Amino acid sequence: MSGSYGRVLVVSLAAILCGSVTAVASPMQPAPVVMPFTTAQLEAARAVRERALEDDTAYELVRSLTSQVGPRLAGTPGDARAVEWAQAQLRALGFSNVHAEPVRVPHWVRGECRVETVSPWPQRLVAEALGGSVATPEGGLEAEVVAVRDLEEMASGDSTRFAGRIVFFSGRMERRSDGSGYGKAVAVRGRGAIEAARRGALAVVIRSVGTDRDRVAHTGGMRYDPNVTRIPALALSNPDADLLVDQLATGERVRLRMRNTSSMADSTWSANVVGEIRGRERPDEVVVLGGHLDSWDLGTGAHDDATGVCIMTGAARLIGQAALRPRRTIRVVMFANEEFGLSGAREYARAHAADAARIVFGMESDLGAFQPLGFRVRVAPEYLPAARAMHSLLSPLGVEWRGNDATGDADVGQLLAIGVPVGDLDTDAAPYFDLHHTPNDTFDKVDPLLVRRNVACYATIAWLAADLRGGFGRVPVTTSRANGR
Amino acid sequence: MSGSYGRVLVVSLAAILCGSVTAVASPMQPAPVVMPFTTAQLEAARAVRERALEDDTAYELVRSLTSQVGPRLAGTPGDARAVEWAQAQLRALGFSNVHAEPVRVPHWVRGECRVETVSPWPQRLVAEALGGSVATPEGGLEAEVVAVRDLEEMASGDSTRFAGRIVFFSGRMERRSDGSGYGKAVAVRGRGAIEAARRGALAVVIRSVGTDRDRVAHTGGMRYDPNVTRIPALALSNPDADLLVDQLATGERVRLRMRNTSSMADSTWSANVVGEIRGRERPDEVVVLGGHLDSWDLGTGAHDDATGVCIMTGAARLIGQAALRPRRTIRVVMFANEEFGLSGAREYARAHAADAARIVFGMESDLGAFQPLGFRVRVAPEYLPAARAMHSLLSPLGVEWRGNDATGDADVGQLLAIGVPVGDLDTDAAPYFDLHHTPNDTFDKVDPLLVRRNVACYATIAWLAADLRGGFGRVPVTTSRANGR
Repeated sequence: MSGSYGRVLVVSLAAILCGSVTAVASPMQPAPVVMPFTTAQLEAARAVRERALEDDTAYELVRSLTSQVGPRLAGTPGDARAVEWAQAQLRALGFSNVHAEPVRVPHWVRGECRVETVSPWPQRLVAEALGGSVATPEGGLEAEVVAVRDLEEMASGDSTRFAGRIVFFSGRMERRSDGSGYGKAVAVRGRGAIEAARRGALAVVIRSVGTDRDRVAHTGGMRYDPNVTRIPALALSNPDADLLVDQLATGERVRLRMRNTSSMADSTWSANVVGEIRGRERPDEVVVLGGHLDSWDLGTGAHDDATGVCIMTGAARLIGQAALRPRRTIRVVMFANEEFGLSGAREYARAHAADAARIVFGMESDLGAFQPLGFRVRVAPEYLPAARAMHSLLSPLGVEWRGNDATGDADVGQLLAIGVPVGDLDTDAAPYFDLHHTPNDTFDKVDPLLVRRNVACYATIAWLAADLRGGFGRVPVTTSRANGR
Repeated sequence: MSGSYGRVLVVSLAAILCGSVTAVASPMQPAPVVMPFTTAQLEAARAVRERALEDDTAYELVRSLTSQVGPRLAGTPGDARAVEWAQAQLRALGFSNVHAEPVRVPHWVRGECRVETVSPWPQRLVAEALGGSVATPEGGLEAEVVAVRDLEEMASGDSTRFAGRIVFFSGRMERRSDGSGYGKAVAVRGRGAIEAARRGALAVVIRSVGTDRDRVAHTGGMRYDPNVTRIPALALSNPDADLLVDQLATGERVRLRMRNTSSMADSTWSANVVGEIRGRERPDEVVVLGGHLDSWDLGTGAHDDATGVCIMTGAARLIGQAALRPRRTIRVVMFANEEFGLSGAREYARAHAADAARIVFGMESDLGAFQPLGFRVRVAPEYLPAARAMHSLLSPLGVEWRGNDATGDADVGQLLAIGVPVGDLDTDAAPYFDLHHTPNDTFDKVDPLLVRRNVACYATIAWLAADLRGGFGRVPVTTSRANGR
């Protein structure tokens, strides 16, 4: 998943919407008189679930994507290879209508990054440029460090203390299963360079937005304001941020030297990759299963988001092999460039706006292949009984019901914004943010049993959503969504 | 701790010696009639132990050494700063006879290291040169990879398959609390380049000798044979070794490109740093508490071996503050260059051979500040009752008695070799080898409560050893010890 465009921010918006939804679904509402699914439908979905719990197709796809493609930052050769890989895999697995839908993407090029304390105690620090950062002046830059915890602390107190300095944002992300620490911590990554430059700073280093204590930095998208000087923005690993804190805690003035050679190249072409399992009765109506094909460049994008696109592919394939195919089509969409501007999902929502009414339901997997903990939807309230019935098949896997405030995550959230009902499978976010956007996001961290469990959940829900008589209706179109990257 | 000079190899030697010791200490041996320690002595040691369990001097010293000095590979500016730091700290803490004893050390200079698969699937791999490795030819080298698990697999089968290739040693170190996985796995690090070059290989990459799955490589010393071509030797992180295994498992031929610019500089001066807590009755007789001041260069040498020298310093200081000082002197020795040839310990044993009889007991902390699990000694059998009495005060901390086969670890083992009785505190080696010789060996991994517990154990044993009437006698001088680095 990408940056300041965090799920938590979107949840806040959805929580507001949810308030009115709850009011509508009051006791005055008549109870539904028709069972949403027949016993035969539930049995068919259950059979898919059970097969998923013994199927390693998704896991082996993750192995292949990570070892044979690897990093695939938008616009890079790895990204182009991923688009080819995805189409070849979908075809080999028997998907229909496999194709790539072109998407224009930005192309940022990571350069070398070197950061060191020069006085009073010289040490080399592990750091990486944030995605989008400009380079330092040739030969690097050197200045005294001034530390603040976060943007709030920067906004309070003397605003002149940052001029000519390197600002160090020292605040630490909280490790929580709901991932809510991310939304709080990521603000300095997105806006830190803007706010520091406004106050005359020369550069920004942030404590990595991540919960591990490994000597690897977490990259991720950052933004500039066209009216504010663009200054370099780098992330330190957590242990290196600790070291800088320890040096500063002595009261000595600490000087930092940094050199970074990243740059923007011309925008280029990537693609959303699509493959379908055709429905038996209404093949022109679809359930979208999304993930993003691109990744940051430091790791091999195993949990972010090879697992997502491979889990959805594995789930759709099992539905294709089921004794009874659902009425509607299952469409796997591997979105381009989620990480650095949501290009693929935005283009998809734009290009498919006219036929959005035929997308009956959407889901995205973009929080890694960790323990599924909860299921939520975002549907018109009269469809909640169907959603609850779908959830009843996840309950034996330890998944709790979480209500009508799903977001569709970053990519499928673009479909929610144009009225498409969505569901979210909430997985344990705690281990995810140990690895997120780091070199450590590699295949060895992927647990095959948890991949199977995720596939089982998505396949079950997707089968039922695709077979639900009458579909899920629409949700209100939102005129504005929190965005950025 | 250093390389192929693993404690496990030394344990094997000691286990053999122990056999004869056990035979001497047979039931025919008369039981000791005198209690080794008086109640007053045991009470004094217990008081030191209890104070240690509430004292963070050692922990704060580790913070200072790691943040204000950092990496301190022998011969580097960091090493020189560490020697200054150590003397300043010992003086500030009230030690006597603080001084540095010069030691000539080799000086290897790490250069840049870049490794990538070039075909069929190009990916950048995380790798670091092993300590002592020569550079690649200018511009790097490229060749097909041939994988073998270990030296045994290399020795079996067709010996011509390595000519002109890059050999990949793929075997994985086993994670065990007794650290025995290290002795088995480290052979390829020490001798891999020699054995591969004998068979015509161009270079060696090994799976890191370490038990983590982080995207960081484990460095460590490697050797050359003067009669065999010197070829570059690099370590891949575990996840990168997995990736290479996955690419090779497809059956495709994998080509690797590598570039490494490390080199040997002229040998230079470092020093063993010494400080003492003078004994009340026999100050010229000493108990040596050792650790090594140098570290590998990738991390800040927190567990290897900042904790060791700081735990020993903290323990000695508490003894100095005790209501009753022991009869003999406690001498902290921070050895130079353990990691790349044991220079400091060898020089110390050479320079102090004449007065070795006045070193009544020695211990070393060089397995990190992890849970103390066992205590063993290496003494003449008639002194075992005293050792058992000393252990009785560690028992409440969960430390078990492990017998008469201690090694003194790498540095203090050099004193054992010239007849000095030694004790070993065995700590949990499993977490140690997750971090060992990697960028991840940093202060954030150090648990203050475990530091206190280690200080308590060493302080208790040291107090009693230094107060034991008559001392511990001598052990047989060994004419040869497994060595190398």
